Amino acid sequence: MASLENKFHKSTFDKIDPERKQRIIDVAISHFAKYGFKATNINNIASEAGISIGSMYSYFESKDDLYLTVGDYGYSLLARALSEVNRKQKDHLKIFEELLRISRRYALDYPELNQVYLEMTTQGMSALSDRLSYQFEEITANLYHSILEKAQEEGQVDPEIDIRVVSFCLDNLIMMFQYSYTSDYYRNRMKIFLGEENPDEEVLIEKVMLFIKRSLAKGV
Amino acid sequence: MASLENKFHKSTFDKIDPERKQRIIDVAISHFAKYGFKATNINNIASEAGISIGSMYSYFESKDDLYLTVGDYGYSLLARALSEVNRKQKDHLKIFEELLRISRRYALDYPELNQVYLEMTTQGMSALSDRLSYQFEEITANLYHSILEKAQEEGQVDPEIDIRVVSFCLDNLIMMFQYSYTSDYYRNRMKIFLGEENPDEEVLIEKVMLFIKRSLAKGV
Repeated sequence: MASLENKFHKSTFDKIDPERKQRIIDVAISHFAKYGFKATNINNIASEAGISIGSMYSYFESKDDLYLTVGDYGYSLLARALSEVNRKQKDHLKIFEELLRISRRYALDYPELNQVYLEMTTQGMSALSDRLSYQFEEITANLYHSILEKAQEEGQVDPEIDIRVVSFCLDNLIMMFQYSYTSDYYRNRMKIFLGEENPDEEVLIEKVMLFIKRSLAKGV
Repeated sequence: MASLENKFHKSTFDKIDPERKQRIIDVAISHFAKYGFKATNINNIASEAGISIGSMYSYFESKDDLYLTVGDYGYSLLARALSEVNRKQKDHLKIFEELLRISRRYALDYPELNQVYLEMTTQGMSALSDRLSYQFEEITANLYHSILEKAQEEGQVDPEIDIRVVSFCLDNLIMMFQYSYTSDYYRNRMKIFLGEENPDEEVLIEKVMLFIKRSLAKGV
């Protein structure tokens, strides 16, 4: 599994078998997604992961800390996916297209982790989300800013656009696209808007990219 | 208060004093927002609203039904706000600008109701959100479709754009704008993207509208 900084777990957790580690994280994600943070019972996570509750508390001080460790784990996966797209692509539109594709893929590959993230954005979770080691949004904001700055320097994007506001708009589009593959509510919402149950992914991405392309074009 | 169809409350609730009715709904919204659905206790709502738990159960069969009544109430407020903008404005860009303004205003005027809505979109709430009388998203989807169809007929919007996908994109922008005034997580995210704590509302709306205007312009 992706390495975790030793912030919310105890050092004992670093020393255990990687498979056992991954199993504990996976079961935790699954419970937080299914029951929501408040109704999740750390004893049940220990039991399903096949460890004693004593072991669990030797790895994590509290349910809060286990949750925050899951948050950091999600961050590490996202950061890795994003660093790949930025290395591989040169053209700014291709990068945004790839980000749409990755956000959908990430939602489908890690449905429960995305559901945990969705709950993390609610006001009831703000005391905990405030304590995360990283700000998820910082990596995306910095990535968008640098892509747009470069494209603007190279004359591929209208010099008049405000990079910060446009980054915000682009991420709003990409996040909502990701949400649309994360919960039943958003899946149903997308169906209502598009009028079809399972829109062809490539056609949809192409049309969203048309929307984005126009918003960045020169001389409108 | 806005009238509620007698779907999730018992008929006794229709007969009580409007002030008492509003107080029960307001306290319920406040508890659902503060504690989240699962950790909310219907006895505490009754107590804070100054009614007996017996009265509470004479109005609502269950916590689920009280929650769904709150959902319908939110819908009625939103539907009213949207019908006003559609009547007053003619130009499609002015309508979208007004929708941005209304979504921010709605988030600021009803912070707790918006927090309840945010939790409603999570996967843990899908069994309940599925049972709502109305689909929130249907009113916005229909509104956007009709605005864009009319603008396309009048030659104000590029005939090539796909109305359904563009409606989806526009609502994604407007919803995320609304979220940005709803929870600490989204407030912090907007700050990271824009680089300022309290961006001037009118300047921000103007810049988001520039993004939208470009995406709809003819002949790009």
